[in-house]
Amino acid sequence: MKGQVYISDVAKHVGEEITIKGWLYNIRSSGKLMFPQLRDGSGIIQGVVFKKNIPESVWEACKNLTQESALIVKGTPRADERAPGGFELDVTDVEVIQVAHDYPITPKEHGIEFLMDHRHLWLRSRRQHSILKVRAEIIRAVRDFFDDRDFTLCDTPIFTPAACEGTTTLFECDYFDDEKAYLTQSGQLYNEATAMAFGKVYCFGPTFRAEKSKTRRHLTEFWMVEPEIAYATLEDVMELAENFITFIVQRVLERRKEELKVLERDISKLENIAPPFPRLHYNDAAKMLKEGGLAFEYGGDLGAPDETFLSEKYDKPLMVHRYPAPVKAFYMEPDPVDQNLSLSVDILAPEGYGEIIGGGQRMVSLDKLRERIAEHNLPESAFDWYLDLRKYGSVPHSGFGMGIERCVTWLCGIEHVRETIPFPRMLYRLKP
Amino acid sequence: MKGQVYISDVAKHVGEEITIKGWLYNIRSSGKLMFPQLRDGSGIIQGVVFKKNIPESVWEACKNLTQESALIVKGTPRADERAPGGFELDVTDVEVIQVAHDYPITPKEHGIEFLMDHRHLWLRSRRQHSILKVRAEIIRAVRDFFDDRDFTLCDTPIFTPAACEGTTTLFECDYFDDEKAYLTQSGQLYNEATAMAFGKVYCFGPTFRAEKSKTRRHLTEFWMVEPEIAYATLEDVMELAENFITFIVQRVLERRKEELKVLERDISKLENIAPPFPRLHYNDAAKMLKEGGLAFEYGGDLGAPDETFLSEKYDKPLMVHRYPAPVKAFYMEPDPVDQNLSLSVDILAPEGYGEIIGGGQRMVSLDKLRERIAEHNLPESAFDWYLDLRKYGSVPHSGFGMGIERCVTWLCGIEHVRETIPFPRMLYRLKP
Repeated sequence: MKGQVYISDVAKHVGEEITIKGWLYNIRSSGKLMFPQLRDGSGIIQGVVFKKNIPESVWEACKNLTQESALIVKGTPRADERAPGGFELDVTDVEVIQVAHDYPITPKEHGIEFLMDHRHLWLRSRRQHSILKVRAEIIRAVRDFFDDRDFTLCDTPIFTPAACEGTTTLFECDYFDDEKAYLTQSGQLYNEATAMAFGKVYCFGPTFRAEKSKTRRHLTEFWMVEPEIAYATLEDVMELAENFITFIVQRVLERRKEELKVLERDISKLENIAPPFPRLHYNDAAKMLKEGGLAFEYGGDLGAPDETFLSEKYDKPLMVHRYPAPVKAFYMEPDPVDQNLSLSVDILAPEGYGEIIGGGQRMVSLDKLRERIAEHNLPESAFDWYLDLRKYGSVPHSGFGMGIERCVTWLCGIEHVRETIPFPRMLYRLKP
Repeated sequence: MKGQVYISDVAKHVGEEITIKGWLYNIRSSGKLMFPQLRDGSGIIQGVVFKKNIPESVWEACKNLTQESALIVKGTPRADERAPGGFELDVTDVEVIQVAHDYPITPKEHGIEFLMDHRHLWLRSRRQHSILKVRAEIIRAVRDFFDDRDFTLCDTPIFTPAACEGTTTLFECDYFDDEKAYLTQSGQLYNEATAMAFGKVYCFGPTFRAEKSKTRRHLTEFWMVEPEIAYATLEDVMELAENFITFIVQRVLERRKEELKVLERDISKLENIAPPFPRLHYNDAAKMLKEGGLAFEYGGDLGAPDETFLSEKYDKPLMVHRYPAPVKAFYMEPDPVDQNLSLSVDILAPEGYGEIIGGGQRMVSLDKLRERIAEHNLPESAFDWYLDLRKYGSVPHSGFGMGIERCVTWLCGIEHVRETIPFPRMLYRLKP
């Protein structure tokens, strides 16, 4: 704020005396010199404190500083090739705002449960900071991509009266007067209504799955972006999806190079991402899996080992299309070539990161959709408004959904999805 | 999609034969001429169908078209000053995709409950379409404002273990193994953690209040944007807020003029919005209310009539600051000039639209914060992680929150907040 220069801006202030407001990240001393590393959220800079250049009282105060103590530091930045970030600060004054208590996160190794319990502090660490900067960049790229292509953002509701895809993994919530509400798993059905009103739409918000699985890919609360387009076919959205993913990857490579370096990400794997992505028909995928000796039954969904086997054969995201209708949601349009298949697509990230996008073409016929709802034992009354969309100007339409946290996991090249959101929610994790 | 021109782009295709994919908005005929109005989500264009220019079968099909029937129309756009939007389409071919059933929303008047029950279709109406285009524009402006000023988007969790501000208006949700989760009312406390890690942050997502009030300003589910800045004071965020509101208003005026015209918004009232906004100390507000003869007790919160009385005296948003501590949340920093007051601000929209922003400076002292938590009868154990922020590098920090739907209501100049979100959730409204 006023009178404050952020560390990310020091290059513009070389040779001037500036004020940095932040926290002590680290400090070492050597005789009449101290080297405090300061962070202010925008970056980290190393300061040089020379005893003879500052008042004695300041020198004494600095000697007792602990990690994460709050400081307002005056000094003059100077270019230094050896310094991380390229600049050092010749410190002229230090005002101690607060001396931190014994900071619990130290350079030594901590267990993951300890770090997750201290998530509110762990976020200050360089690695977590970098991951969340990549996350924010991805989210901005997502919104720019759709906004710049004239998609209208239409937020879909979190409270829903009925399930979109089955009821076993829904969170139930008390509404008013003994009514129950369920937390959304997908904005899909609502997107179809807004697509008929706006042509091209997307929703982007938190979604919820009450899965009792504890894997490195699952959160109970995660963010999903879902575009939907009236008059679009499966092929249209496959093309859209490959351009979309490429756009995001390029944006992160352009703007978050420093963070990817902190994360030791092999960016050559990302630089390679460009359209066209390989397209693999489900039938061909099934053949490859059989030939590869995997225990895969034709007609079933792909399991994690199947996805890994297939995606390892490519260095780009793989689009597997036309899954059997029974393994997909009730609203998928059947493939006219083979009615047992659906006009659906899953996109598998490279390097074993698994499915990041699922989508397809939606069923257009009122009668067929009613049959499907009955076959899936879903109550038709819950879908009356959705069926209206097939009565009043039903047109072919398609879309997809991408989970943000899986995308962040892939682009950062990390192991576990829990680090990709500021405050992850999982099976046994509701705090902080 | 491919081979399709959107109505918003016809100006680039004058004289060319193009294909429009959409729905019938309206039709009238006169002898050998028909004038179908087409909408495709991007706009509305009037077509001219001249019997002698098209096959007999197409003419017959067109005669039976109903409102909201799905059509693919070929034709040549031509500039016409009298036409709404400035262009007409000389139709050369019409392909009927689906003849709509008897469309329930007609030009006649419908009751609000009927329209809300048909929200999934009502969205197609010109007025609702315009409101939601303004909403999407505001949301983009919000994100651009903060992203371009180096704020880091840090999504805060929806599932929370404890209440941020009291527990009476919380939605309770079954988590796992008999554990309860509460849906967030504000990202505030989490923002304070991320602000200490990133310096300048914002969160922007749905928030929930289980208020049993049925007013034109309340939704149970609404979107809120909340910036938070380390080392910022109340004055810093007041200045930020006035620049923020001005930015949003300007953006909507620039890009959504057509929609504001549909809504018959008096834009002169918006063109006037520019910094500085009037600042009114709570004590002065209290005096004005007393002199104005309102039944207002010093020390209390402002009621809706008080807000209306005050904001009517200004033609810009009014910033009322330094409310009594007891009417504000426990984490507000006391005013050093008068410890009974808090470093808080509410911003009241003009034209009687009431509070759109609430914010302030947060308490920095660990001991005082503990006292406040006890005074408010809140369980300290629920706030252990929040108190950590005062142990490890506590600094002055400030922020605010703005409810998107109230902002949309004001900018659109409409009566009720229920029209400002695609699928509103209210006391007796959980469907569609």
